[in-house]
Amino acid sequence: MSELRQNRITGEWVIIASERASRPEDFHTHEEKPPIPEHKASCPFCPGNESMTPPESLADREDTEANAPGWQVRVIPNKYPALDPRGEATWFNEVNFFNAVAGYGVHDVIIDHPRHDLTIATMPLADVERLFFIYRERYRQLEKNEHILLINIFRNYGRKAGASLEHPHSQVLGTPIIPTRIQHRLNMAKEYYQIHNKCITCDMVERTLQVKERVVLNTRRFVVFQPFASQSPFETWIVPKRHCCSFGEITNNECRELAEIMRDMLWRMYSSLGDPDYNYLIQASPTNTRYREKYHWYAQIIPRVTASVGFELSSGIYISTARPEETAEFLRAVPPPEK
Amino acid sequence: MSELRQNRITGEWVIIASERASRPEDFHTHEEKPPIPEHKASCPFCPGNESMTPPESLADREDTEANAPGWQVRVIPNKYPALDPRGEATWFNEVNFFNAVAGYGVHDVIIDHPRHDLTIATMPLADVERLFFIYRERYRQLEKNEHILLINIFRNYGRKAGASLEHPHSQVLGTPIIPTRIQHRLNMAKEYYQIHNKCITCDMVERTLQVKERVVLNTRRFVVFQPFASQSPFETWIVPKRHCCSFGEITNNECRELAEIMRDMLWRMYSSLGDPDYNYLIQASPTNTRYREKYHWYAQIIPRVTASVGFELSSGIYISTARPEETAEFLRAVPPPEK
Repeated sequence: MSELRQNRITGEWVIIASERASRPEDFHTHEEKPPIPEHKASCPFCPGNESMTPPESLADREDTEANAPGWQVRVIPNKYPALDPRGEATWFNEVNFFNAVAGYGVHDVIIDHPRHDLTIATMPLADVERLFFIYRERYRQLEKNEHILLINIFRNYGRKAGASLEHPHSQVLGTPIIPTRIQHRLNMAKEYYQIHNKCITCDMVERTLQVKERVVLNTRRFVVFQPFASQSPFETWIVPKRHCCSFGEITNNECRELAEIMRDMLWRMYSSLGDPDYNYLIQASPTNTRYREKYHWYAQIIPRVTASVGFELSSGIYISTARPEETAEFLRAVPPPEK
Repeated sequence: MSELRQNRITGEWVIIASERASRPEDFHTHEEKPPIPEHKASCPFCPGNESMTPPESLADREDTEANAPGWQVRVIPNKYPALDPRGEATWFNEVNFFNAVAGYGVHDVIIDHPRHDLTIATMPLADVERLFFIYRERYRQLEKNEHILLINIFRNYGRKAGASLEHPHSQVLGTPIIPTRIQHRLNMAKEYYQIHNKCITCDMVERTLQVKERVVLNTRRFVVFQPFASQSPFETWIVPKRHCCSFGEITNNECRELAEIMRDMLWRMYSSLGDPDYNYLIQASPTNTRYREKYHWYAQIIPRVTASVGFELSSGIYISTARPEETAEFLRAVPPPEK
């Protein structure tokens, strides 16, 4: 029989549909992806084509000039930004029934790597680490902007995940509002804290380690698991053991370990599921610090192996056809990447 | 410059990204769909194959035997139900940190039409009306089950919308819980009512008619518009002018008019956007009637012309690359279907 499960952190319910359950290996994409060249003359993100992008705002480069080749990671403003720092961070249209604010904000593209053909799963570990240090640095820069209330770092990989460019890249979006879903989550975390005098995420980590079966990796500083109420097959949470609300405050060791885990998990999915499309994202607290004790940042991987359906759009309940206990077991058995 | 807009009914924010805005016609699928036969010997939903499905629980048929040909619409239990009425509607696992309940509920498939090759856009109007009368009848039946708190009627059309079968069909899912998103929405409607002594949806309809530019159709009993904070291009709301919380309480005339509008709107999208995949759904109040004055049912069409991305999964903010003012203008200009 199916189960309805609730994620205590997000409040969201999912149906783990056992009647229609698939084995983990059934989610293999079986797609033949065409080979990708190491360098593409027409790609604006490839080295040598720096003039095809807006000027960089941050880069990992040694003794090379800005906006010239010789970089490892490059941060540039999105050419077609969803939000734009050139606007005024002031409200408008608030008097009418219809609430709207100016699209003030920051929208970066992070070019993850000089090579056109690599992805996190196939990059050398040191390169993934350098990328995650840039994530943290950019986060710290944007945190200082008082008009930016939430900083979203995420990666769309493949068409099903909404990526339109092939060259490996991530994105950063800083918004001038706290979205309703995040506000709701903060309220629940606060309520839990008031009742239990404990962070709800710290509690979830503890209980998940007790139950064991959904844990994929238990490293020095992180627990990696398939959540009890997984919204989709192979959804993965990477949660730091140290309570901390802000991604900007992670230590060098945490940053390195996060990079290693992300590469490891994405490699396991890449090699066992046929290079599936995915999104990953970093869920951090809003940048004002009222939620210091109550909110706990984490990273999340969502492989796009199934399509969302009408019922999910209508009710907000996701139907997953895989049991997280089984996908965790499956991923544990996949050999990790070479160092 | 982009705009951040909030939907007052759902509480959700969207970014209308004007920098990356597309013209409405740019969302044309340009897909060549292979021709579909009128009847398929292997299709379990085609007439003559009734024994391939579980026995029907409801049907629109005249003087023909149950589970034999001669029907117009057929309601059957889903062979692989996400929720199942054979289970016990009792809680379990509530003591642990991880909340779960048994997957009790109802999951129907509604076979919309005997013909394998038709869809709502291309069906005769009378047939769409018969389908919508079955929707209402099934809703009324399920409303009587005290363990079902929410009845979701929806249609997934095409692979991008999560449909796995070609034969025209809809689904009904009755859940034993009120999902968090719906509860949140009800709370907001209640709060608005307490402040304004008025239903928030009635107010939205009124203001939308005043502003005019996002209205596609204004019929005797319904307003059809692209919402101010559209989550995706061409998202369409079909809202009854008469305040009513329950889809089960619609009149015969409302039911007929809803069917006509749904066919009209889906035809306009079919003919002008190249037969896009879509979901439609009916958003009704939970079946207990505490929300009678505060909640207002409506139908929603979401064409799947773009993919959701990492930022949306992380923040709950959707980015739409079309202005609803422009998509409304575009759809108004498309010729309606023949009667």
